[in-house]
Amino acid sequence: MKIRNFRCVLCKTEYDPEEVQYTCSKCGTLGILEVNYDYRSFTEASYLDISPDIKQGMWKYANFLPIDNFKNIPPLKVGGTPLYKNKYLSKKLQIKDLYIKDDTTNPTSSLKDRASALVVKLALDKGVKAITCASTGNAASSLAGICASVGLKCYIFVPKTAPKAKIIQLLIYGAEVFAVDGSYDDAFDLSIEATNKFGWYNRNTGYNPFTIEGKKTVSLEIIKQIISNKFNIPDKILVPVGDGCIISGVYKGFYDLIKVGILKKMPQLIGVQAEGSNAIYLAMKRGDKIESIKPNTIADSISVGRPRNGEMAISHIRASNGFVELVPDEQILEAMRILARRTGIFAEPAGAAAFAGLLKMSREKRLKSDEIVVVLVTGSGLKDIDSALKAVKKPHYIKPNLKEVKKILGKLHF
Amino acid sequence: MKIRNFRCVLCKTEYDPEEVQYTCSKCGTLGILEVNYDYRSFTEASYLDISPDIKQGMWKYANFLPIDNFKNIPPLKVGGTPLYKNKYLSKKLQIKDLYIKDDTTNPTSSLKDRASALVVKLALDKGVKAITCASTGNAASSLAGICASVGLKCYIFVPKTAPKAKIIQLLIYGAEVFAVDGSYDDAFDLSIEATNKFGWYNRNTGYNPFTIEGKKTVSLEIIKQIISNKFNIPDKILVPVGDGCIISGVYKGFYDLIKVGILKKMPQLIGVQAEGSNAIYLAMKRGDKIESIKPNTIADSISVGRPRNGEMAISHIRASNGFVELVPDEQILEAMRILARRTGIFAEPAGAAAFAGLLKMSREKRLKSDEIVVVLVTGSGLKDIDSALKAVKKPHYIKPNLKEVKKILGKLHF
Repeated sequence: MKIRNFRCVLCKTEYDPEEVQYTCSKCGTLGILEVNYDYRSFTEASYLDISPDIKQGMWKYANFLPIDNFKNIPPLKVGGTPLYKNKYLSKKLQIKDLYIKDDTTNPTSSLKDRASALVVKLALDKGVKAITCASTGNAASSLAGICASVGLKCYIFVPKTAPKAKIIQLLIYGAEVFAVDGSYDDAFDLSIEATNKFGWYNRNTGYNPFTIEGKKTVSLEIIKQIISNKFNIPDKILVPVGDGCIISGVYKGFYDLIKVGILKKMPQLIGVQAEGSNAIYLAMKRGDKIESIKPNTIADSISVGRPRNGEMAISHIRASNGFVELVPDEQILEAMRILARRTGIFAEPAGAAAFAGLLKMSREKRLKSDEIVVVLVTGSGLKDIDSALKAVKKPHYIKPNLKEVKKILGKLHF
Repeated sequence: MKIRNFRCVLCKTEYDPEEVQYTCSKCGTLGILEVNYDYRSFTEASYLDISPDIKQGMWKYANFLPIDNFKNIPPLKVGGTPLYKNKYLSKKLQIKDLYIKDDTTNPTSSLKDRASALVVKLALDKGVKAITCASTGNAASSLAGICASVGLKCYIFVPKTAPKAKIIQLLIYGAEVFAVDGSYDDAFDLSIEATNKFGWYNRNTGYNPFTIEGKKTVSLEIIKQIISNKFNIPDKILVPVGDGCIISGVYKGFYDLIKVGILKKMPQLIGVQAEGSNAIYLAMKRGDKIESIKPNTIADSISVGRPRNGEMAISHIRASNGFVELVPDEQILEAMRILARRTGIFAEPAGAAAFAGLLKMSREKRLKSDEIVVVLVTGSGLKDIDSALKAVKKPHYIKPNLKEVKKILGKLHF
């Protein structure tokens, strides 16, 4: 088996994978487990007996995943998302190269599909009868979509305030949706109680150790795309941070690539948090433990009171010599607008947060002209059009005649 | 040059491509032009000096496109969308094989990106300073996104009643948006007046002959995927029909493949219209000319009073020995629900219309057990969540405690 052990991020206790399923038995739910591999087992997968479509996606990196067969691979094409090199923006930002990884084109329109696809495959391998998850939105809608594709029953706990589009995704995919009159934390705790009570399998972010293993495929893909295109290896990668799971996934992908000798150096990880949801930033600044805050930001996917994966995220950011950048909501809206206008990628607020961080660093002259930077775009703007509405001006309302068009063009150009 | 001539779908007059840009000079705006090729020029493109990401998409089929270089290719990855073989549904529908082509994962979340990408490349080749389009939504949002990716100015005319998400896409991509106090037809006519007046390039569906050439890449891809997967060649393909442009694109792709000897037989084209937008259905039934109707359907993308490409669509449907199927809005909503629940693909109403047609044919026992069917899914459900809301039940609203969960599970299971 590829997995050597699970190790608690807090007390460093090591577990056999058969021994424990989710978090450290000593430290409780904050004792997230890291999956450690025997890297000698990472030989090139020669058993890719799956359809060419699926092979273009995340399963191309099967040799890096905690699987040893292709049974129960969900059919939806997850990953294999584009990496764009943007000359216009790199010139504007005065850096050498800018790459944008567009994970909005996943089947349910967010990066979370990478985690859901892996966890659903493992759930089917275990023969579970149902799966559950608590989420502010994207993890849940992703899980619901992937479950629909394989016919696995799925129970979702969301705070009843989650954005409408994400709840509609859940419902149309046929999940049983519990809209909880409480916070994300309440939904999270309830999902764990239900997991224990009903024997479901749990996919919670910052709880199930395999979500990070799915998310790491984004880094494997970025490096593969950079090498195939003969692009330059990045110095920095900017990642939106809520619970801290995606950034740990990003770290883990690069870590694996270093371990097997494909990558020489860990890129610097820059986590970007909304000013109104800054628990990880504060803890790093104080050099102390994470304390709960009352989040308040337009970027619902990174709006978190108590980051579930915060300790691991901090250790990974530090290991990469990185830091956390804060951006106010206005800068997130501005980043959505500039990103869409200059690249054709429409991101939700959290999805554009990393780009907002880059714009801020550029404005503050904290980027160097020889730097090579990747920005991760994690979710589609169509998931939250009410926020996008705040980022745009109104259309020109006109009667259907050319005179009115001319009048407006006159105002625009002259 | 690959193009032999343009031929008017009504009077059959042939034009040199240098001679005319949009429609037949004798027949006016209804005289849509077909692009005819010298098929001997369709040699395998050996000049694919573009990034691997782009190569996975529609430009893989460059030898079938009216281009002879890779200058000005928009960078967004258009096409290369998945084709899913669905065993569960083919069993339920009692057919041999069902393939679902998922074009919701294009950059702006609809099939229209295929047309926009080609037209924008041609516009840049011509050196135009701006491009314009009238649309009920998807063609426009697609054009705006692709234009953003290359920095080309774009002017959009929409009826002011177009769905909110699609208008927001336009605005965030930075298009100048004219929301016309009138119908789609008013917006269409105004866009053509503006094209002539201001010297813009026009991408209107059912007007610019190259939109169909872009859309045909969906058929090229379907056959390529079927051959690569060693699947069976389809007997039937179901396509949602509004203006009739997509179905003509689908026909053209198969036609080209027959001409070059890759495909033996034209699959039967089944156009699916909403009952409340049935102009093409009525014309085919009467065996007469198309007459305008007052459209009324939830499926905005196929809600059309006077199908601009109707004549060509009818001739293509007939040439394939096909027909038009009508579905009421309730069946479209049901199809959205079943498609999402059984495949994980969330379609907008028009996007699910073809699948609704298939469900109807199955219920009426009009499918044979040895048949191989493709269903085209053309746009994402996230573009119109208000319609999706009509297709789903409500979440279970609960207080955050296990007792309430148990109570609801009791009702669900026992």
